[in-house]
Amino acid sequence: MENLENSTDCKETASPLNNSGSLLNNTDSRPDGRAMGFVLVHAGAGYHSESKAKEYKHVCKRACQKAVDRLRAGGMALEAVTAALIELEDSPFTNAGTGSNLNLSGEIECDASIMDGKSLNYGAVGALSGIKNPVLVARRLLSETQKGKLSAGRIPPCFLVGKGAEQWAISHGIPACPTEKMTTKFSLSGYKRNKRKMELAEQVEMKRKRQSCEHENNSACLDTVGAVVVDREGNVAAAVSSGGLAMKHPGRVGQAAHYGCGCWAENARDISLYSTAVSTSGSPFLAGEDCVLGGVIVLRCCTCGEAQRSEDIQAVLVEFLWSHTTESMCVGYMSAQDSKARVSSSYI
Amino acid sequence: MENLENSTDCKETASPLNNSGSLLNNTDSRPDGRAMGFVLVHAGAGYHSESKAKEYKHVCKRACQKAVDRLRAGGMALEAVTAALIELEDSPFTNAGTGSNLNLSGEIECDASIMDGKSLNYGAVGALSGIKNPVLVARRLLSETQKGKLSAGRIPPCFLVGKGAEQWAISHGIPACPTEKMTTKFSLSGYKRNKRKMELAEQVEMKRKRQSCEHENNSACLDTVGAVVVDREGNVAAAVSSGGLAMKHPGRVGQAAHYGCGCWAENARDISLYSTAVSTSGSPFLAGEDCVLGGVIVLRCCTCGEAQRSEDIQAVLVEFLWSHTTESMCVGYMSAQDSKARVSSSYI
Repeated sequence: MENLENSTDCKETASPLNNSGSLLNNTDSRPDGRAMGFVLVHAGAGYHSESKAKEYKHVCKRACQKAVDRLRAGGMALEAVTAALIELEDSPFTNAGTGSNLNLSGEIECDASIMDGKSLNYGAVGALSGIKNPVLVARRLLSETQKGKLSAGRIPPCFLVGKGAEQWAISHGIPACPTEKMTTKFSLSGYKRNKRKMELAEQVEMKRKRQSCEHENNSACLDTVGAVVVDREGNVAAAVSSGGLAMKHPGRVGQAAHYGCGCWAENARDISLYSTAVSTSGSPFLAGEDCVLGGVIVLRCCTCGEAQRSEDIQAVLVEFLWSHTTESMCVGYMSAQDSKARVSSSYI
Repeated sequence: MENLENSTDCKETASPLNNSGSLLNNTDSRPDGRAMGFVLVHAGAGYHSESKAKEYKHVCKRACQKAVDRLRAGGMALEAVTAALIELEDSPFTNAGTGSNLNLSGEIECDASIMDGKSLNYGAVGALSGIKNPVLVARRLLSETQKGKLSAGRIPPCFLVGKGAEQWAISHGIPACPTEKMTTKFSLSGYKRNKRKMELAEQVEMKRKRQSCEHENNSACLDTVGAVVVDREGNVAAAVSSGGLAMKHPGRVGQAAHYGCGCWAENARDISLYSTAVSTSGSPFLAGEDCVLGGVIVLRCCTCGEAQRSEDIQAVLVEFLWSHTTESMCVGYMSAQDSKARVSSSYI
């Protein structure tokens, strides 16, 4: 949701700020709703004013609560992470879903992806217009993939873009939503200001001048939202969603839609005792950039040795961290045993 | 170019066939045109009839020659790899550019990407219609990225899809080409047969039946083309281009357009004495597939210790290999010192 006019100096020398925590997540597995699980979300790494930080904290709390509601109802990590993302996308303050940055043509084009640590299946959409919750389309692509081949042996798609993605979503029962409904007063005024700024820049001598990152703030691109979840069975899932860069060229697809870039989730298996889920914000394609702005949330968990002895009591050790090179990042986290989510705005 | 009706049994148990070679590439660096360099290309891994294998050999030869012409003229790896790809795309027999598989709507939508081992810059297009040489757009995106930021500090795109990609290409002077001109008699008849087959499959009890890979041949997806190059300065570059799956859903983007999936190129640097370039065919998203069909070409090179002593004579040791799990794969390779390209159709 940050727009180009929110100028901040880029801290080239800043080392990333790391925050982390761990908790031993003991829950009995009786079917009384006290299910185990944990969620960590973020609402964007960038520059946030105080008023915006407050909104971000609220939406992070709500997103954690939605995920935990699913976990307590016996939902798996994939469902919980989707529920968190929908909440983050629906906030008009995040640069994902409703309130996304407008592109050069004044349209909304969203990227989103989701990964299931159990099956390693993946679903993603890029440059998607006209759908309120891009993560829902990514989620549906993932589940369709899991069903196997289509008629005549065709491999189902796991990454769709543009008009084709929109048509697929609608034909799979995901309702269309006009761009106007997803555009906010804030995103529209940001667009108009950026448009004027660009026109001015192009009229003046800056016409051919390429600018360096000291002169402009590009943290705008980083208000991607994301979530990582572990469920009662120890399955992990990760998801990411982004409206992309303000004033981007139509058809641009960012890291949020890229396999292995925007998110990753992988259950513990022979080669590792740990399950891992990661969701990133920022671009991996910035080789040659003077400063690389980004943020990441990470969840790692393992079943404790002691707990394995008991059949009734399952325990999972959850470690989590967030890190960013941007000025600030707002995160929320919650265990299925907590009564409410904890949120934190961290600043470099 | 393989279509759904070209049925082949999938060899689940087949181990990949590996082929490799190495040559010591000695060239003096006098400006007499005897420039050093090497190219390895492939025209697709899949099932190839004998007549098709012949055509593939021809186009591989021509693609090698085009790349070597550039290298001899002092061109860098990036230019040479682009020249090879254009030749491969222009062949009506490959599933890239002209002659690409048609999607569910009878349209051509291409994926392509390119990577520069020197700068690590990258450019890609996905689901691109209406442009004869998708690799040219990827190449142009890469070079625009290298120029730095756009007006008002905007980050230039390195991955564009669909209509936006087509518009960007045209506005950057790359001419439009109607789908009809890129459609061949062969791709059109394949589309019609597949369409009938699908309709039949959906009418009959197969309506809801998901098929396993024993029953249908999906090697159709693998006739991606690719090339890897090293130039006289030891820079490497890699590129890949694909028309994608026959009868794919509009908007589907495959591995050829994915960062870190379709191709990779990385010059030697502190951590490694070797420069490496790779181009792949097949999908990394097939977790859960019974059989994974794919092919890869790899080039690795290093400057020889001995040669470093001489200032006039530069020597580079080039190692290369191709490997595939598909029934066959057609490759070509050529050093800038060779009088003609060598080609090979390898069969499992």
